[in-house]
Amino acid sequence: MAQKGSVEDFLAMAVDAAKSAGEIIRSAFYQTKRVEHKGEVDLVTETDKKCEEVIFDFLKLQYPDHKLIGEETAAACGTIELTDEPTWIVDPIDGTTNFVHGFPFVCVSIGLTIGRIPTVGVVYNPIMDELFTAIRGKGAFLNGKPIKVSSQSELVKSLLATEVAANREKAIIDAVTNRINSLLFKVRSLRMTGSCALDLCGIACGRNDMFYLVGFGGPWDVAAGAVIVTEAGGLVFDPSGKDFDITSQRVAASNPLIKDAFIEALQQSE
Amino acid sequence: MAQKGSVEDFLAMAVDAAKSAGEIIRSAFYQTKRVEHKGEVDLVTETDKKCEEVIFDFLKLQYPDHKLIGEETAAACGTIELTDEPTWIVDPIDGTTNFVHGFPFVCVSIGLTIGRIPTVGVVYNPIMDELFTAIRGKGAFLNGKPIKVSSQSELVKSLLATEVAANREKAIIDAVTNRINSLLFKVRSLRMTGSCALDLCGIACGRNDMFYLVGFGGPWDVAAGAVIVTEAGGLVFDPSGKDFDITSQRVAASNPLIKDAFIEALQQSE
Repeated sequence: MAQKGSVEDFLAMAVDAAKSAGEIIRSAFYQTKRVEHKGEVDLVTETDKKCEEVIFDFLKLQYPDHKLIGEETAAACGTIELTDEPTWIVDPIDGTTNFVHGFPFVCVSIGLTIGRIPTVGVVYNPIMDELFTAIRGKGAFLNGKPIKVSSQSELVKSLLATEVAANREKAIIDAVTNRINSLLFKVRSLRMTGSCALDLCGIACGRNDMFYLVGFGGPWDVAAGAVIVTEAGGLVFDPSGKDFDITSQRVAASNPLIKDAFIEALQQSE
Repeated sequence: MAQKGSVEDFLAMAVDAAKSAGEIIRSAFYQTKRVEHKGEVDLVTETDKKCEEVIFDFLKLQYPDHKLIGEETAAACGTIELTDEPTWIVDPIDGTTNFVHGFPFVCVSIGLTIGRIPTVGVVYNPIMDELFTAIRGKGAFLNGKPIKVSSQSELVKSLLATEVAANREKAIIDAVTNRINSLLFKVRSLRMTGSCALDLCGIACGRNDMFYLVGFGGPWDVAAGAVIVTEAGGLVFDPSGKDFDITSQRVAASNPLIKDAFIEALQQSE
Protein backbone atom coordinates (compact mmCIF):
# COMPACT_ATOMS: atom_id res chain seq x y z
CA MET A 1 0.00 0.00 0.00
CA ALA A 2 1.33 3.42 -0.96
CA GLN A 3 2.33 5.86 1.78
CA LYS A 4 -0.45 8.33 2.62
CA GLY A 5 0.13 11.60 0.81
CA SER A 6 2.49 10.12 -1.83
CA VAL A 7 1.64 10.47 -5.53
CA GLU A 8 1.14 6.69 -5.63
CA ASP A 9 -1.44 7.08 -2.86
CA PHE A 10 -3.15 9.91 -4.76
CA LEU A 11 -3.37 7.67 -7.84
CA ALA A 12 -4.70 4.70 -5.88
CA MET A 13 -7.43 6.83 -4.30
CA ALA A 14 -8.33 8.43 -7.65
CA VAL A 15 -8.67 4.93 -9.15
CA ASP A 16 -10.92 3.88 -6.23
CA ALA A 17 -13.09 6.97 -6.73
CA ALA A 18 -13.27 6.43 -10.50
CA LYS A 19 -14.22 2.77 -10.08
CA SER A 20 -17.01 3.67 -7.60
CA ALA A 21 -18.42 6.24 -10.00
CA GLY A 22 -17.90 3.79 -12.86
CA GLU A 23 -20.12 1.22 -11.13
CA ILE A 24 -22.93 3.77 -10.95
CA ILE A 25 -22.46 4.73 -14.59
CA ARG A 26 -22.37 1.14 -15.82
CA SER A 27 -25.50 0.11 -13.97
CA ALA A 28 -27.40 3.14 -15.30
CA PHE A 29 -26.04 2.91 -18.85
CA TYR A 30 -28.70 0.70 -20.35
CA GLN A 31 -31.59 2.10 -18.31
CA THR A 32 -33.86 4.91 -19.32
CA LYS A 33 -32.44 8.08 -17.90
CA ARG A 34 -34.18 11.18 -16.67
CA VAL A 35 -32.53 14.06 -18.40
CA GLU A 36 -32.42 17.75 -17.53
CA HIS A 37 -31.24 20.36 -19.99
CA LYS A 38 -28.31 22.64 -19.37
CA GLY A 39 -28.61 24.09 -22.85
CA GLU A 40 -30.30 22.98 -26.01
CA VAL A 41 -27.64 20.47 -26.94
CA ASP A 42 -25.95 19.83 -23.62
CA LEU A 43 -27.24 17.40 -21.04
CA VAL A 44 -26.90 16.63 -17.43
CA THR A 45 -28.28 13.57 -15.77
CA GLU A 46 -28.96 12.44 -12.28
CA THR A 47 -26.10 10.00 -12.66
CA ASP A 48 -23.71 12.85 -13.44
CA LYS A 49 -24.57 14.59 -10.18
CA LYS A 50 -24.55 11.39 -8.13
CA CYS A 51 -21.11 10.42 -9.47
CA GLU A 52 -19.62 13.83 -8.66
CA GLU A 53 -20.97 13.56 -5.10
CA VAL A 54 -19.50 10.08 -4.65
CA ILE A 55 -16.09 11.17 -5.94
CA PHE A 56 -16.02 14.45 -3.96
CA ASP A 57 -17.14 12.82 -0.69
CA PHE A 58 -14.44 10.17 -1.05
CA LEU A 59 -11.64 12.60 -1.90
CA LYS A 60 -12.66 15.07 0.84
CA LEU A 61 -12.48 12.26 3.38
CA GLN A 62 -9.03 11.18 2.15
CA TYR A 63 -7.57 14.64 1.68
CA PRO A 64 -9.46 17.27 3.67
CA ASP A 65 -6.91 19.99 2.76
CA HIS A 66 -7.07 19.46 -1.00
CA LYS A 67 -9.14 21.70 -3.26
CA LEU A 68 -11.86 20.27 -5.50
CA ILE A 69 -13.12 21.45 -8.88
CA GLY A 70 -15.94 19.49 -10.50
CA GLU A 71 -17.93 20.02 -13.65
CA GLU A 72 -21.33 19.87 -11.96
CA THR A 73 -20.32 22.05 -8.98
CA ALA A 74 -18.62 24.59 -11.25
CA ALA A 75 -21.68 24.74 -13.50
CA ALA A 76 -23.81 25.48 -10.43
CA CYS A 77 -21.40 27.93 -8.71
CA GLY A 78 -19.97 29.90 -11.62
CA THR A 79 -16.27 30.78 -11.48
CA ILE A 80 -13.40 28.31 -11.17
CA GLU A 81 -10.19 29.32 -9.44
CA LEU A 82 -7.14 27.13 -9.94
CA THR A 83 -4.41 27.75 -7.33
CA ASP A 84 -1.03 26.18 -6.54
CA GLU A 85 -2.67 23.98 -3.88
CA PRO A 86 -3.20 20.28 -4.66
CA THR A 87 -6.46 20.40 -6.60
CA TRP A 88 -8.62 17.52 -7.80
CA ILE A 89 -10.28 18.36 -11.10
CA VAL A 90 -13.17 16.01 -11.80
CA ASP A 91 -15.52 15.27 -14.66
CA PRO A 92 -17.92 12.67 -13.25
CA ILE A 93 -19.13 11.72 -16.74
CA ASP A 94 -17.20 12.92 -19.75
CA GLY A 95 -19.39 12.09 -22.71
CA THR A 96 -22.76 12.82 -21.09
CA THR A 97 -24.48 12.90 -24.47
CA ASN A 98 -23.01 9.47 -25.23
CA PHE A 99 -24.22 8.25 -21.83
CA VAL A 100 -27.76 9.45 -22.54
CA HIS A 101 -27.76 7.82 -25.99
CA GLY A 102 -26.06 4.59 -24.92
CA PHE A 103 -22.98 5.27 -27.06
CA PRO A 104 -20.08 3.46 -25.34
CA PHE A 105 -17.52 6.33 -25.21
CA VAL A 106 -18.24 7.42 -21.66
CA CYS A 107 -15.72 7.96 -18.86
CA VAL A 108 -14.92 9.30 -15.43
CA SER A 109 -12.02 11.78 -15.51
CA ILE A 110 -10.09 12.61 -12.32
CA GLY A 111 -6.96 14.77 -12.46
CA LEU A 112 -4.82 16.21 -9.69
CA THR A 113 -2.81 19.38 -10.19
CA ILE A 114 -0.01 20.37 -7.81
CA GLY A 115 1.42 23.82 -8.41
CA ARG A 116 -1.06 23.99 -11.31
CA ILE A 117 0.77 21.13 -13.04
CA PRO A 118 -1.27 18.01 -13.95
CA THR A 119 0.41 15.39 -11.76
CA VAL A 120 -1.99 12.44 -11.47
CA GLY A 121 -4.55 11.39 -14.05
CA VAL A 122 -7.22 8.70 -14.12
CA VAL A 123 -9.66 8.22 -17.01
CA TYR A 124 -11.98 5.23 -16.65
CA ASN A 125 -14.43 4.00 -19.28
CA PRO A 126 -16.69 1.63 -17.31
CA ILE A 127 -18.57 0.47 -20.41
CA MET A 128 -15.49 -0.80 -22.22
CA ASP A 129 -13.68 -1.43 -18.90
CA GLU A 130 -10.65 0.62 -19.89
CA LEU A 131 -8.70 2.32 -17.10
CA PHE A 132 -6.07 4.87 -18.19
CA THR A 133 -3.69 6.04 -15.44
CA ALA A 134 -0.57 8.18 -15.12
CA ILE A 135 1.62 9.84 -12.52
CA ARG A 136 3.91 12.67 -13.66
CA GLY A 137 7.37 11.21 -14.36
CA LYS A 138 6.24 7.62 -13.95
CA GLY A 139 4.66 6.54 -17.23
CA ALA A 140 1.13 5.97 -18.50
CA PHE A 141 -0.87 2.76 -18.40
CA LEU A 142 -4.02 1.16 -19.81
CA ASN A 143 -5.38 -1.51 -17.46
CA GLY A 144 -1.95 -1.71 -15.87
CA LYS A 145 0.02 -2.13 -19.11
CA PRO A 146 2.37 0.64 -20.31
CA ILE A 147 1.09 2.65 -23.27
CA LYS A 148 2.78 4.98 -25.70
CA VAL A 149 1.80 7.37 -28.43
CA SER A 150 1.99 6.42 -32.11
CA SER A 151 5.15 6.87 -34.14
CA GLN A 152 3.34 8.24 -37.16
CA SER A 153 5.22 11.15 -38.69
CA GLU A 154 3.20 11.80 -41.87
CA LEU A 155 -0.02 13.81 -41.86
CA VAL A 156 -1.43 11.84 -44.79
CA LYS A 157 -1.22 8.62 -42.78
CA SER A 158 -2.57 10.15 -39.56
CA LEU A 159 -5.89 9.71 -37.86
CA LEU A 160 -7.26 12.98 -36.50
CA ALA A 161 -9.76 13.28 -33.65
CA THR A 162 -11.87 16.30 -32.80
CA GLU A 163 -15.37 17.10 -31.54
CA VAL A 164 -18.14 19.54 -32.29
CA ALA A 165 -18.73 21.57 -29.12
CA ALA A 166 -22.20 22.20 -27.72
CA ASN A 167 -22.25 25.83 -28.88
CA ARG A 168 -24.46 26.25 -31.98
CA GLU A 169 -23.75 29.90 -32.93
CA LYS A 170 -23.27 30.35 -36.66
CA ALA A 171 -19.77 31.83 -36.41
CA ILE A 172 -18.63 28.93 -34.24
CA ILE A 173 -20.12 26.17 -36.42
CA ASP A 174 -18.69 27.82 -39.52
CA ALA A 175 -15.25 27.98 -37.90
CA VAL A 176 -15.51 24.30 -36.88
CA THR A 177 -16.47 23.03 -40.33
CA ASN A 178 -14.05 25.33 -42.20
CA ARG A 179 -11.24 23.98 -40.06
CA ILE A 180 -12.34 20.37 -40.67
CA ASN A 181 -12.55 21.09 -44.41
CA SER A 182 -8.97 22.39 -44.47
CA LEU A 183 -7.61 19.51 -42.41
CA LEU A 184 -9.41 16.75 -44.34
CA PHE A 185 -7.24 17.41 -47.39
CA LYS A 186 -4.16 16.56 -45.34
CA VAL A 187 -5.00 13.65 -43.02
CA ARG A 188 -6.08 10.04 -43.46
CA SER A 189 -9.39 10.28 -41.67
CA LEU A 190 -11.38 11.92 -38.91
CA ARG A 191 -12.96 10.48 -35.75
CA MET A 192 -15.45 12.08 -33.36
CA THR A 193 -16.29 10.02 -30.28
CA GLY A 194 -17.92 12.65 -28.07
CA SER A 195 -15.44 12.46 -25.16
CA CYS A 196 -12.51 14.86 -24.89
CA ALA A 197 -10.88 12.85 -22.11
CA LEU A 198 -11.06 9.63 -24.15
CA ASP A 199 -9.78 11.46 -27.24
CA LEU A 200 -6.70 12.42 -25.20
CA CYS A 201 -6.32 8.81 -24.02
CA GLY A 202 -6.66 7.75 -27.67
CA ILE A 203 -3.57 9.85 -28.42
CA ALA A 204 -1.79 8.33 -25.40
CA CYS A 205 -2.29 4.75 -26.59
CA GLY A 206 -1.77 5.50 -30.28
CA ARG A 207 -5.35 4.95 -31.50
CA ASN A 208 -5.33 8.50 -32.82
CA ASP A 209 -2.30 10.43 -33.98
CA MET A 210 -3.60 13.98 -33.49
CA PHE A 211 -6.39 15.67 -31.53
CA TYR A 212 -7.58 19.24 -31.11
CA LEU A 213 -10.59 20.86 -29.52
CA VAL A 214 -11.54 24.47 -28.89
CA GLY A 215 -14.41 25.63 -26.68
CA PHE A 216 -14.98 22.59 -24.48
CA GLY A 217 -16.47 22.75 -20.98
CA GLY A 218 -13.51 23.37 -18.70
CA PRO A 219 -10.33 22.00 -17.11
CA TRP A 220 -12.14 18.81 -16.01
CA ASP A 221 -12.16 17.68 -19.66
CA VAL A 222 -8.35 17.79 -19.92
CA ALA A 223 -6.72 17.67 -16.45
CA ALA A 224 -6.38 13.88 -16.28
CA GLY A 225 -5.88 13.35 -20.02
CA ALA A 226 -3.03 15.87 -20.19
CA VAL A 227 -0.79 13.92 -17.81
CA ILE A 228 -1.73 10.61 -19.43
CA VAL A 229 -0.72 11.92 -22.88
CA THR A 230 2.54 13.42 -21.58
CA GLU A 231 3.51 10.27 -19.71
CA ALA A 232 2.79 8.18 -22.81
CA GLY A 233 5.44 10.20 -24.62
CA GLY A 234 3.02 12.64 -26.26
CA LEU A 235 2.75 16.40 -26.24
CA VAL A 236 -0.14 18.61 -25.13
CA PHE A 237 -0.21 22.14 -26.46
CA ASP A 238 -2.43 24.99 -27.54
CA PRO A 239 -3.82 24.56 -31.08
CA SER A 240 -1.92 27.76 -31.99
CA GLY A 241 1.33 25.98 -31.07
CA LYS A 242 1.79 27.96 -27.83
CA ASP A 243 1.95 26.35 -24.38
CA PHE A 244 -1.06 24.43 -23.09
CA ASP A 245 -3.13 26.34 -20.52
CA ILE A 246 -5.42 24.04 -18.58
CA THR A 247 -7.94 26.84 -17.97
CA SER A 248 -8.13 28.08 -21.59
CA GLN A 249 -10.69 25.62 -23.03
CA ARG A 250 -8.27 25.01 -25.90
CA VAL A 251 -6.23 21.86 -26.35
CA ALA A 252 -4.25 19.93 -28.92
CA ALA A 253 -2.21 16.76 -28.52
CA SER A 254 -0.10 14.50 -30.71
CA ASN A 255 3.00 12.39 -30.78
CA PRO A 256 6.24 14.45 -30.91
CA LEU A 257 7.15 13.42 -34.49
CA ILE A 258 4.07 14.97 -36.07
CA LYS A 259 3.59 17.99 -33.79
CA ASP A 260 5.17 20.63 -36.07
CA ALA A 261 3.29 19.46 -39.18
CA PHE A 262 0.06 19.30 -37.14
CA ILE A 263 0.48 22.85 -35.80
CA GLU A 264 1.23 24.13 -39.31
CA ALA A 265 -1.93 22.41 -40.60
CA LEU A 266 -3.95 23.86 -37.70
CA GLN A 267 -2.57 27.36 -38.38
CA GLN A 268 -3.42 27.06 -42.08
CA SER A 269 -6.94 25.95 -41.15
CA GLU A 270 -7.79 29.12 -39.20
CA MET B 1 -29.73 -27.27 -35.01
CA ALA B 2 -31.43 -25.41 -37.84
CA GLN B 3 -32.46 -27.32 -40.98
CA LYS B 4 -29.86 -27.09 -43.76
CA GLY B 5 -30.86 -24.39 -46.22
CA SER B 6 -33.25 -22.57 -43.83
CA VAL B 7 -32.67 -18.89 -43.02
CA GLU B 8 -31.83 -19.94 -39.46
CA ASP B 9 -29.12 -22.21 -40.87
CA PHE B 10 -27.81 -19.35 -43.05
CA LEU B 11 -27.61 -17.12 -39.97
CA ALA B 12 -25.88 -19.78 -37.86
CA MET B 13 -23.26 -20.37 -40.55
CA ALA B 14 -22.72 -16.61 -41.04
CA VAL B 15 -22.16 -16.26 -37.29
CA ASP B 16 -19.64 -19.13 -37.35
CA ALA B 17 -17.80 -17.51 -40.25
CA ALA B 18 -17.83 -14.08 -38.55
CA LYS B 19 -16.52 -15.55 -35.29
CA SER B 20 -13.68 -17.35 -37.09
CA ALA B 21 -12.66 -14.15 -38.85
CA GLY B 22 -13.15 -12.23 -35.59
CA GLU B 23 -10.59 -14.46 -33.84
CA ILE B 24 -8.03 -13.60 -36.50
CA ILE B 25 -8.82 -9.90 -36.21
CA ARG B 26 -8.67 -9.86 -32.42
CA SER B 27 -5.33 -11.66 -32.24
CA ALA B 28 -3.81 -9.26 -34.80
CA PHE B 29 -5.40 -6.11 -33.37
CA TYR B 30 -2.62 -5.14 -30.98
CA GLN B 31 0.24 -6.37 -33.15
CA THR B 32 2.21 -4.34 -35.61
CA LYS B 33 0.59 -4.81 -38.98
CA ARG B 34 2.13 -4.83 -42.41
CA VAL B 35 0.13 -2.45 -44.47
CA GLU B 36 -0.30 -2.10 -48.20
CA HIS B 37 -1.88 0.92 -49.80
CA LYS B 38 -4.99 0.76 -51.95
CA GLY B 39 -4.99 4.52 -52.28
CA GLU B 40 -3.43 7.33 -50.36
CA VAL B 41 -5.90 7.19 -47.47
CA ASP B 42 -7.31 3.70 -47.80
CA LEU B 43 -5.66 0.61 -46.43
CA VAL B 44 -5.67 -3.09 -46.83
CA THR B 45 -3.90 -5.48 -44.57
CA GLU B 46 -2.89 -9.07 -44.64
CA THR B 47 -5.56 -9.72 -42.05
CA ASP B 48 -8.23 -8.30 -44.34
CA LYS B 49 -7.30 -10.77 -47.08
CA LYS B 50 -6.89 -13.70 -44.70
CA CYS B 51 -10.32 -13.07 -43.15
CA GLU B 52 -12.05 -12.91 -46.54
CA GLU B 53 -10.42 -16.24 -47.50
CA VAL B 54 -11.55 -17.88 -44.26
CA ILE B 55 -15.13 -16.63 -44.68
CA PHE B 56 -15.35 -17.47 -48.40
CA ASP B 57 -13.84 -20.97 -47.97
CA PHE B 58 -16.34 -21.71 -45.19
CA LEU B 59 -19.40 -20.41 -47.05
CA LYS B 60 -18.40 -22.14 -50.33
CA LEU B 61 -18.17 -25.43 -48.48
CA GLN B 62 -21.58 -24.95 -46.85
CA TYR B 63 -23.39 -23.54 -49.88
CA PRO B 64 -21.58 -24.43 -53.13
CA ASP B 65 -24.43 -22.96 -55.22
CA HIS B 66 -24.50 -19.54 -53.53
CA LYS B 67 -22.79 -16.50 -55.03
CA LEU B 68 -20.12 -14.58 -53.14
CA ILE B 69 -19.20 -10.90 -53.25
CA GLY B 70 -16.33 -9.72 -51.05
CA GLU B 71 -14.60 -6.39 -50.68
CA GLU B 72 -11.10 -7.70 -51.29
CA THR B 73 -12.07 -9.93 -54.24
CA ALA B 74 -14.16 -7.16 -55.80
CA ALA B 75 -11.29 -4.71 -55.42
CA ALA B 76 -9.03 -7.18 -57.23
CA CYS B 77 -11.52 -8.27 -59.93
CA GLY B 78 -13.33 -5.06 -60.80
CA THR B 79 -17.07 -5.30 -61.45
CA ILE B 80 -19.70 -6.56 -59.04
CA GLU B 81 -22.85 -8.17 -60.31
CA LEU B 82 -25.71 -8.67 -57.89
CA THR B 83 -28.28 -11.20 -59.14
CA ASP B 84 -31.45 -12.75 -57.71
CA GLU B 85 -29.45 -15.79 -56.59
CA PRO B 86 -28.67 -16.18 -52.88
CA THR B 87 -25.56 -14.01 -52.57
CA TRP B 88 -23.24 -13.58 -49.62
CA ILE B 89 -21.88 -10.04 -49.44
CA VAL B 90 -18.86 -9.85 -47.19
CA ASP B 91 -16.65 -7.15 -45.73
CA PRO B 92 -13.94 -9.10 -43.88
CA ILE B 93 -12.88 -5.99 -41.93
CA ASP B 94 -15.12 -2.93 -41.97
CA GLY B 95 -13.07 -0.18 -40.38
CA THR B 96 -9.67 -1.19 -41.80
CA THR B 97 -8.20 2.20 -40.92
CA ASN B 98 -9.40 1.70 -37.34
CA PHE B 99 -7.88 -1.77 -37.36
CA VAL B 100 -4.52 -0.42 -38.48
CA HIS B 101 -4.60 2.34 -35.86
CA GLY B 102 -5.93 0.17 -33.02
CA PHE B 103 -9.18 2.13 -32.78
CA PRO B 104 -11.80 -0.33 -31.46
CA PHE B 105 -14.59 0.20 -34.05
CA VAL B 106 -13.73 -2.76 -36.25
CA CYS B 107 -16.09 -5.47 -37.48
CA VAL B 108 -16.77 -8.37 -39.81
CA SER B 109 -19.89 -7.77 -41.94
CA ILE B 110 -21.66 -10.70 -43.61
CA GLY B 111 -24.96 -10.19 -45.40
CA LEU B 112 -27.04 -12.55 -47.51
CA THR B 113 -29.36 -11.27 -50.23
CA ILE B 114 -32.06 -13.48 -51.75
CA GLY B 115 -33.84 -11.97 -54.75
CA ARG B 116 -31.57 -8.94 -54.13
CA ILE B 117 -33.25 -8.37 -50.75
CA PRO B 118 -31.02 -8.30 -47.64
CA THR B 119 -32.29 -11.33 -45.76
CA VAL B 120 -29.65 -12.32 -43.21
CA GLY B 121 -27.18 -9.95 -41.53
CA VAL B 122 -24.28 -10.50 -39.15
CA VAL B 123 -22.00 -7.70 -37.93
CA TYR B 124 -19.41 -8.77 -35.37
CA ASN B 125 -17.04 -6.43 -33.53
CA PRO B 126 -14.45 -8.83 -32.05
CA ILE B 127 -12.68 -6.09 -30.08
CA MET B 128 -15.78 -5.06 -28.12
CA ASP B 129 -17.28 -8.57 -28.47
CA GLU B 130 -20.54 -7.27 -29.89
CA LEU B 131 -22.45 -9.55 -32.26
CA PHE B 132 -25.36 -7.98 -34.15
CA THR B 133 -27.63 -10.42 -35.99
CA ALA B 134 -30.90 -10.34 -37.93
CA ILE B 135 -33.05 -12.48 -40.18
CA ARG B 136 -35.65 -10.73 -42.36
CA GLY B 137 -39.00 -10.83 -40.54
CA LYS B 138 -37.53 -12.26 -37.33
CA GLY B 139 -36.10 -9.33 -35.37
CA ALA B 140 -32.63 -7.99 -34.65
CA PHE B 141 -30.34 -8.92 -31.78
CA LEU B 142 -27.17 -7.80 -30.01
CA ASN B 143 -25.41 -10.72 -28.34
CA GLY B 144 -28.70 -12.60 -28.44
CA LYS B 145 -30.84 -9.86 -26.87
CA PRO B 146 -33.50 -8.08 -28.96
CA ILE B 147 -32.60 -4.53 -29.98
CA LYS B 148 -34.67 -1.66 -31.29
CA VAL B 149 -34.09 1.78 -32.74
CA SER B 150 -34.43 4.93 -30.62
CA SER B 151 -37.77 6.70 -30.21
CA GLN B 152 -36.28 10.16 -30.63
CA SER B 153 -38.52 12.35 -32.79
CA GLU B 154 -36.78 15.73 -32.50
CA LEU B 155 -33.77 16.65 -34.62
CA VAL B 156 -32.38 18.94 -31.91
CA LYS B 157 -32.15 16.01 -29.50
CA SER B 158 -30.75 13.57 -32.05
CA LEU B 159 -27.29 12.13 -32.39
CA LEU B 160 -26.13 12.00 -36.01
CA ALA B 161 -23.48 9.65 -37.37
CA THR B 162 -21.62 9.97 -40.64
CA GLU B 163 -18.12 9.38 -42.02
CA VAL B 164 -15.65 11.08 -44.29
CA ALA B 165 -15.03 8.79 -47.24
CA ALA B 166 -11.56 7.98 -48.51
CA ASN B 167 -11.91 10.24 -51.56
CA ARG B 168 -9.98 13.49 -51.13
CA GLU B 169 -11.09 15.47 -54.21
CA LYS B 170 -11.85 19.11 -53.41
CA ALA B 171 -15.45 18.99 -54.66
CA ILE B 172 -16.15 15.93 -52.53
CA ILE B 173 -14.55 17.25 -49.33
CA ASP B 174 -16.35 20.59 -49.81
CA ALA B 175 -19.68 18.78 -50.23
CA VAL B 176 -19.01 16.68 -47.12
CA THR B 177 -18.17 19.63 -44.88
CA ASN B 178 -20.90 21.89 -46.29
CA ARG B 179 -23.43 19.18 -45.51
CA ILE B 180 -22.04 18.73 -41.99
CA ASN B 181 -22.17 22.50 -41.49
CA SER B 182 -25.83 22.65 -42.45
CA LEU B 183 -26.79 19.66 -40.28
CA LEU B 184 -24.86 20.79 -37.20
CA PHE B 185 -27.28 23.68 -36.69
CA LYS B 186 -30.12 21.20 -36.35
CA VAL B 187 -28.88 18.18 -34.40
CA ARG B 188 -27.49 17.57 -30.92
CA SER B 189 -24.11 16.25 -31.94
CA LEU B 190 -22.10 14.33 -34.51
CA ARG B 191 -20.19 11.06 -34.26
CA MET B 192 -17.70 9.51 -36.69
CA THR B 193 -16.48 6.04 -35.80
CA GLY B 194 -14.95 4.92 -39.09
CA SER B 195 -17.20 1.88 -39.69
CA CYS B 196 -20.30 2.11 -41.86
CA ALA B 197 -21.57 -1.32 -40.74
CA LEU B 198 -21.22 -0.38 -37.07
CA ASP B 199 -22.88 2.99 -37.72
CA LEU B 200 -25.88 1.08 -39.06
CA CYS B 201 -25.84 -1.21 -36.01
CA GLY B 202 -25.66 1.94 -33.85
CA ILE B 203 -28.96 3.02 -35.42
CA ALA B 204 -30.40 -0.46 -34.84
CA CYS B 205 -29.65 -0.41 -31.10
CA GLY B 206 -30.49 3.27 -30.58
CA ARG B 207 -26.97 4.57 -29.91
CA ASN B 208 -27.39 6.94 -32.84
CA ASP B 209 -30.66 8.36 -34.11
CA MET B 210 -29.66 9.13 -37.69
CA PHE B 211 -26.91 8.08 -40.11
CA TYR B 212 -26.02 8.92 -43.68
CA LEU B 213 -23.07 8.20 -45.92
CA VAL B 214 -22.41 8.83 -49.58
CA GLY B 215 -19.52 7.40 -51.58
CA PHE B 216 -18.51 4.40 -49.46
CA GLY B 217 -16.81 1.27 -50.82
CA GLY B 218 -19.64 -0.97 -51.94
CA PRO B 219 -22.58 -3.19 -50.97
CA TRP B 220 -20.43 -5.09 -48.41
CA ASP B 221 -20.56 -1.99 -46.18
CA VAL B 222 -24.37 -2.06 -45.94
CA ALA B 223 -25.73 -5.52 -46.86
CA ALA B 224 -25.73 -6.91 -43.30
CA GLY B 225 -26.43 -3.59 -41.56
CA ALA B 226 -29.51 -2.90 -43.70
CA VAL B 227 -31.38 -5.99 -42.50
CA ILE B 228 -30.25 -5.40 -38.90
CA VAL B 229 -31.62 -1.82 -38.97
CA THR B 230 -34.89 -2.88 -40.60
CA GLU B 231 -35.45 -5.73 -38.17
CA ALA B 232 -34.76 -3.38 -35.23
CA GLY B 233 -37.71 -1.27 -36.40
CA GLY B 234 -35.65 1.26 -38.33
CA LEU B 235 -35.69 2.45 -41.91
CA VAL B 236 -32.95 2.36 -44.52
CA PHE B 237 -33.30 4.74 -47.44
CA ASP B 238 -31.42 6.87 -49.93
CA PRO B 239 -30.23 10.21 -48.48
CA SER B 240 -32.48 11.89 -51.09
CA GLY B 241 -35.50 10.17 -49.49
CA LYS B 242 -35.90 7.69 -52.34
CA ASP B 243 -35.68 3.91 -51.94
CA PHE B 244 -32.44 2.37 -50.75
CA ASP B 245 -30.38 0.73 -53.49
CA ILE B 246 -27.75 -1.63 -52.12
CA THR B 247 -25.48 -1.07 -55.11
CA SER B 248 -25.64 2.73 -55.12
CA GLN B 249 -22.95 3.58 -52.50
CA ARG B 250 -25.51 5.88 -50.86
CA VAL B 251 -27.26 5.10 -47.59
CA ALA B 252 -29.25 6.75 -44.83
CA ALA B 253 -30.96 5.19 -41.82
CA SER B 254 -33.01 6.35 -38.85
CA ASN B 255 -35.91 5.45 -36.64
CA PRO B 256 -39.31 5.93 -38.35
CA LEU B 257 -40.36 8.90 -36.16
CA ILE B 258 -37.56 11.17 -37.30
CA LYS B 259 -37.21 10.01 -40.91
CA ASP B 260 -39.15 12.85 -42.55
CA ALA B 261 -37.38 15.60 -40.58
CA PHE B 262 -34.03 13.92 -41.29
CA ILE B 263 -34.68 13.73 -45.04
CA GLU B 264 -35.78 17.37 -45.08
CA ALA B 265 -32.58 18.35 -43.25
CA LEU B 266 -30.51 16.26 -45.69
CA GLN B 267 -32.24 17.87 -48.69
CA GLN B 268 -31.61 21.36 -47.27
CA SER B 269 -27.96 20.45 -46.76
CA GLU B 270 -27.26 19.69 -50.42
